Amino acid sequence: MADVIYDRDRPDRIGMPEAILCEGKSPEQIAAAIDQALQGADNVLLTRLVPAIAEELSISDYDEESWTGIAGTWEPPAGEPRVAVVAAGTSDLRVAREALRTLAYHGIPAAEYADVGVAGLWRLLDISEELAEYRAIIAVAGMDGAMFTVLSGLVPGVVVAVPTSIGYGVSRDGETALHAALASCAQGIVAVNIDNGYGAACAVTRLFGLDR
Amino acid sequence: MADVIYDRDRPDRIGMPEAILCEGKSPEQIAAAIDQALQGADNVLLTRLVPAIAEELSISDYDEESWTGIAGTWEPPAGEPRVAVVAAGTSDLRVAREALRTLAYHGIPAAEYADVGVAGLWRLLDISEELAEYRAIIAVAGMDGAMFTVLSGLVPGVVVAVPTSIGYGVSRDGETALHAALASCAQGIVAVNIDNGYGAACAVTRLFGLDR
Amino acid sequence: MADVIYDRDRPDRIGMPEAILCEGKSPEQIAAAIDQALQGADNVLLTRLVPAIAEELSISDYDEESWTGIAGTWEPPAGEPRVAVVAAGTSDLRVAREALRTLAYHGIPAAEYADVGVAGLWRLLDISEELAEYRAIIAVAGMDGAMFTVLSGLVPGVVVAVPTSIGYGVSRDGETALHAALASCAQGIVAVNIDNGYGAACAVTRLFGLDR
Amino acid sequence: MADVIYDRDRPDRIGMPEAILCEGKSPEQIAAAIDQALQGADNVLLTRLVPAIAEELSISDYDEESWTGIAGTWEPPAGEPRVAVVAAGTSDLRVAREALRTLAYHGIPAAEYADVGVAGLWRLLDISEELAEYRAIIAVAGMDGAMFTVLSGLVPGVVVAVPTSIGYGVSRDGETALHAALASCAQGIVAVNIDNGYGAACAVTRLFGLDR
Amino acid sequence: MADVIYDRDRPDRIGMPEAILCEGKSPEQIAAAIDQALQGADNVLLTRLVPAIAEELSISDYDEESWTGIAGTWEPPAGEPRVAVVAAGTSDLRVAREALRTLAYHGIPAAEYADVGVAGLWRLLDISEELAEYRAIIAVAGMDGAMFTVLSGLVPGVVVAVPTSIGYGVSRDGETALHAALASCAQGIVAVNIDNGYGAACAVTRLFGLDR
Amino acid sequence: MADVIYDRDRPDRIGMPEAILCEGKSPEQIAAAIDQALQGADNVLLTRLVPAIAEELSISDYDEESWTGIAGTWEPPAGEPRVAVVAAGTSDLRVAREALRTLAYHGIPAAEYADVGVAGLWRLLDISEELAEYRAIIAVAGMDGAMFTVLSGLVPGVVVAVPTSIGYGVSRDGETALHAALASCAQGIVAVNIDNGYGAACAVTRLFGLDR
Amino acid sequence: MADVIYDRDRPDRIGMPEAILCEGKSPEQIAAAIDQALQGADNVLLTRLVPAIAEELSISDYDEESWTGIAGTWEPPAGEPRVAVVAAGTSDLRVAREALRTLAYHGIPAAEYADVGVAGLWRLLDISEELAEYRAIIAVAGMDGAMFTVLSGLVPGVVVAVPTSIGYGVSRDGETALHAALASCAQGIVAVNIDNGYGAACAVTRLFGLDR
Amino acid sequence: MADVIYDRDRPDRIGMPEAILCEGKSPEQIAAAIDQALQGADNVLLTRLVPAIAEELSISDYDEESWTGIAGTWEPPAGEPRVAVVAAGTSDLRVAREALRTLAYHGIPAAEYADVGVAGLWRLLDISEELAEYRAIIAVAGMDGAMFTVLSGLVPGVVVAVPTSIGYGVSRDGETALHAALASCAQGIVAVNIDNGYGAACAVTRLFGLDR
Repeated sequence: MADVIYDRDRPDRIGMPEAILCEGKSPEQIAAAIDQALQGADNVLLTRLVPAIAEELSISDYDEESWTGIAGTWEPPAGEPRVAVVAAGTSDLRVAREALRTLAYHGIPAAEYADVGVAGLWRLLDISEELAEYRAIIAVAGMDGAMFTVLSGLVPGVVVAVPTSIGYGVSRDGETALHAALASCAQGIVAVNIDNGYGAACAVTRLFGLDR
Repeated sequence: MADVIYDRDRPDRIGMPEAILCEGKSPEQIAAAIDQALQGADNVLLTRLVPAIAEELSISDYDEESWTGIAGTWEPPAGEPRVAVVAAGTSDLRVAREALRTLAYHGIPAAEYADVGVAGLWRLLDISEELAEYRAIIAVAGMDGAMFTVLSGLVPGVVVAVPTSIGYGVSRDGETALHAALASCAQGIVAVNIDNGYGAACAVTRLFGLDR
Repeated sequence: MADVIYDRDRPDRIGMPEAILCEGKSPEQIAAAIDQALQGADNVLLTRLVPAIAEELSISDYDEESWTGIAGTWEPPAGEPRVAVVAAGTSDLRVAREALRTLAYHGIPAAEYADVGVAGLWRLLDISEELAEYRAIIAVAGMDGAMFTVLSGLVPGVVVAVPTSIGYGVSRDGETALHAALASCAQGIVAVNIDNGYGAACAVTRLFGLDR
Repeated sequence: MADVIYDRDRPDRIGMPEAILCEGKSPEQIAAAIDQALQGADNVLLTRLVPAIAEELSISDYDEESWTGIAGTWEPPAGEPRVAVVAAGTSDLRVAREALRTLAYHGIPAAEYADVGVAGLWRLLDISEELAEYRAIIAVAGMDGAMFTVLSGLVPGVVVAVPTSIGYGVSRDGETALHAALASCAQGIVAVNIDNGYGAACAVTRLFGLDR
Repeated sequence: MADVIYDRDRPDRIGMPEAILCEGKSPEQIAAAIDQALQGADNVLLTRLVPAIAEELSISDYDEESWTGIAGTWEPPAGEPRVAVVAAGTSDLRVAREALRTLAYHGIPAAEYADVGVAGLWRLLDISEELAEYRAIIAVAGMDGAMFTVLSGLVPGVVVAVPTSIGYGVSRDGETALHAALASCAQGIVAVNIDNGYGAACAVTRLFGLDR
Repeated sequence: MADVIYDRDRPDRIGMPEAILCEGKSPEQIAAAIDQALQGADNVLLTRLVPAIAEELSISDYDEESWTGIAGTWEPPAGEPRVAVVAAGTSDLRVAREALRTLAYHGIPAAEYADVGVAGLWRLLDISEELAEYRAIIAVAGMDGAMFTVLSGLVPGVVVAVPTSIGYGVSRDGETALHAALASCAQGIVAVNIDNGYGAACAVTRLFGLDR
Repeated sequence: MADVIYDRDRPDRIGMPEAILCEGKSPEQIAAAIDQALQGADNVLLTRLVPAIAEELSISDYDEESWTGIAGTWEPPAGEPRVAVVAAGTSDLRVAREALRTLAYHGIPAAEYADVGVAGLWRLLDISEELAEYRAIIAVAGMDGAMFTVLSGLVPGVVVAVPTSIGYGVSRDGETALHAALASCAQGIVAVNIDNGYGAACAVTRLFGLDR
Repeated sequence: MADVIYDRDRPDRIGMPEAILCEGKSPEQIAAAIDQALQGADNVLLTRLVPAIAEELSISDYDEESWTGIAGTWEPPAGEPRVAVVAAGTSDLRVAREALRTLAYHGIPAAEYADVGVAGLWRLLDISEELAEYRAIIAVAGMDGAMFTVLSGLVPGVVVAVPTSIGYGVSRDGETALHAALASCAQGIVAVNIDNGYGAACAVTRLFGLDR
């Protein structure tokens, strides 16, 4: 079997632990990576760990909704939320919660705002005052990605857009939402890869600095 | 030279006169088509007629902003506007005005609302009550096309989206705006080809029936 | 589990009830959305509800051919058809019937014309007089989408094109039919997303106004 | 300067003379290729020879509408037309005439039918009896390419589709017309590259055998 | 269940019977279409009929290699082959045999040449004299589609290219082979849709005229 | 002429002044927008203002290298740089300097690092200690965009990737660099649209808060 | 069943044995190809042979990690490695090992370097001296493909890039890594198809000459 | 003006001098880069230097056909050719000669074979014995790129494919030729970016080692 080398020196260099992306790895490969990780650290984050594979492994803290797990001992952060994670639709929640879990693992409390897509603009307007308090907002949306632009026009913080693969036809598995974020007529929006809630959380963690 | 056959029987069959799309035609071809058209009708609409070519022809009514002309005798319609044409940005105006001119040529009065893109959401909210009175709204926007979805959530009428080729990079000459219209998380939106203000006006004319 | 918020105030604002798109949702999420919907309304439309999932839910009115269901109490509309729904091939029928069911749910009677693709042009010519009576026609076709253009040249009403993902190779899951609708050499055609029979029906409902 | 080698043995092997594609070649390169060709043959066909370049060369028979020239001595074929070349719109004529000239150069008489696009279906129906007499029809159309399918349903001969780059937006420089030809719900259609009138004529020449 | 209308008048009009494309249809829909077809004809061709579905139906003549069936009574044609069907690789055989079966059903005898891809050029050169006798050659190849160009340079007949979806990565499910056929530096090549052996055979049948 | 409405209330709402994107606007439209802007503010930023157009306008502070101008009275910021702007190649400098000018206009001092592409990895390693001091780095690169990933592995700050349209062939006008940024095997990278130096600077300004 | 013809004369002509690509072939087709191959040679390489199919065949030397098998008798090469095979991530190992096995089958010893992606640049720098000794390096990476450029700047040998389909979203099944290799700002990189470890090994074998 | 830093230490590290890509640079930027280069070396290669720009600079050795120049003092290599450069058509010669000049600049003699595209297969077969003597062949072709596969089946050396942007329609500016090279049914082919003759020569130089 392929040896899996876990990058133990990473936190020192760039201030952040490496996570284990489980997609495309066998349970054996994941288990080996966890073992190696826990030799040099108290815990390790696992992403894109589908329930079927998670059952075969002994993960102390597995979350079915975000497909994330944390192996080892770990405490969630306390205190006021410093980041808002905003999801446009019900189907965007898995990705939004991957971002929330990653932030929590990095010691950064965050608040979730769900089902505030712009087809029902009032829901978003209702919380715009609240959202205006955050320096950074992770926005999660698929289909047309119109929420990114509207949000960016309502708040002074930076909007980290996470396009999702939700939708069909010309949604093109998230490409339309991604392009809408990047081609926005508003400014203040930056984007990560489609469905990459983990990456959005890492970028925000870098902004604030890791707190663990 | 190629003979240009103008379809004189068209209004009887589908209730609408054929227009002459000037793009890709020589001044001679356009002049020949006008001649033929005016043998069977009082006037004819010319679209995508750039100023440089227009100067070489004797068009009684040429409009530089919409690149449209009307040859022959013609009277603009009077009365209350029945359609709203909404443009997101200054650069979208040529296309919006092609729609307005086409509606006017078809005898349908319409109202223009300019520079109401969703990056400045308040401008659009300010006129939403007014827009809610129209049965059909032609919405013209490039870049991310976010205006289509927001508009559709604010009004009960049908939104005919005209994506424009305004923008750069991932705007892809209007493809992103088009896909945003079609993949919208809202409903009640239909779309025409990129920059096709003429086509949007024709579809709306069919809804109301030609009035000439 | 993710909370599913149903938008109860929607009919007041834009004149149309929100439907529940079941694709990508678990039976539990769908059931929760139905419960919430029926607290504020007599019924709710479910779309893209595949038979396997439908069996797990207690839907009073499920239709296998259109993959739609209506939960709650509901009466189909009576009276003369106001819209024609035209399907090119046998394989386009699921999408065509999603449009028909949505229209019915919105209180708008409609007529179905099946298997009238332009490869056998005579079938379409045979019904062209009849189709010419409708103000709006929902046209459903995959592959080359040639029916959209032909239809638009035969009737005075607006043609709402629903490209379908039927076909293989360069059909590209409906992209070719969509582009054919938008790039048509005819006018009077507007388009919705690939396979989006629901969206076409909603646009037409907006034209006529909701009748429930 | 690059030597240009003209393939003099070609007619013997595959029954057809090579032509000189002038696009992307300098007048000097074209002149050299002509010289070489005329050493082994009485004449040679030049394609995509724009008027500006043609003026710099001494071509005995240059045709501005098709951008083709024939150097050397040459006689057009006489007799009944054996192939029909059908063009959908005025803008498609350059490509249609490239096909006609190539057929003539190959000794095959052909008939032109212009401006018979399916937006005005009656024009095409009017000539369908006539077209049904041909074993092969070269059909030239841009935009949605709907003519290919309709034509194929009206006649028993093979339809050689030449998509053109006419159109804008989702026409994608001929890609939509090409895909419509290939994804057609009708059968009996084969396609050549976009704007390739020459290639369509060559394929038809192979069917009949070269007659020079 | 959806009614399936079989086009019985087709042979009279365009000289060829309609076939039943089974892909995307349920066994019930296929059976209904067969019933209707056999009321007006002695037999009917079924394409893309996978073995699993074929087992559920009582098809008198089913061929597992080409996924085709012929319902009703039918006699294969006798006599010298009039068309060559050339397959580049083993994996291209299903499509090649769909073409062969369709030709046979249309009464046209044809010869198969297998595994003559140009990576091993000698195999193709060995049979080039033989192939030069045919007026039309159906060429079936995936991956780079290089065989189309080479073949076209070796024979005087028309080459009907059938690109296949064989390959991976930049083969793009047949798009590269299709584009290679259309962009060929040789002439005399026409193409049909990816994997469309049936369509290639129909085009060739139109060339020769149906013989049944 | 089209009226150009400048959004004077914008700074209050989202903490940042709107800039005037000059691309696609006539000198008259730009001049009108400047006039309107200077009625409510001391200065206004102009982007994508090519030298030829700039000459026709009286801009107090025009910079040829970044194609930016600032109309009105304005003072560059003083103090230590808070952001690093890193350009991979000489050809990326126009975009990098658009970012620098925008930051300066927003009152944020920044430092430029030029010609540090990863083909010559040592140049980047030489400055990695220095770059590690910044909370945010704007990275500008075209072609393969490999610099984004390497940079992100060397520093703890967030990397705002600006892909540029530099390159040819499969660079696809910046698409490859954009995709490389988004698909990076590293984390901590966010992206803006191709060539959008202005947008990257705006996002960073939002992080720090506007300082004017 | 389709006859499978194995090209026995191939080694004489181009110096290399043909392998059997098992993907898309049935176990019977593979077995027939092996039989034919072993009539003219001592052994034959099988690629893309998934474990489930391998179990049904009696392959003397099957390797689960590379999905390769060698039928017949065979000895691995001895001696110093002449080629380095470098894999960016754990998920790239299958493809890397396909290259290693192919080299071994061709008699060329090679060394594997795993998990040296550029997100952790130090790992790659640590082995750069070692890698600089090789005339040819096969580099295997997915996602952003940044390793290709960095590697090429560190070593004097040629870099044969094998992009892999590892990644999601804009990775586009390996297209982004492929384009990054080809659009590299470094030189000395050549590429093969996505996931084509076999092809990279064959190219390198041609460089050195087959040694069996 | 932007400073242009020339990488003087490059030859020591990776065994090859950096060239100056002139495309997209102003004459002033090119002149500055030359000055800097000649401070640390006897000569420097300039690529993509169009004649119009070359005239403004004083390049001792400029070649109009390849758009390359060599500034400083320089001697072409003597001796037997070690590499073959094969061009399919006349229009491919600029790119082929960029490769030849780059090889010469690197001290590697090479031989040119022009106009040997596979549409006229015999030309290529005629020289196949000769080509079989080379360890490496640079193959330059546009359109369908069929030459790459045929060549690879005729010779034992490695084929470095340089797809060119020659062609129209589905040639897609070289993409089809590139994909044909990568998806080839033959093996032993590696590819560089479209039109990148320089890159192909650099890769071959790395194979042989720089000889200057």
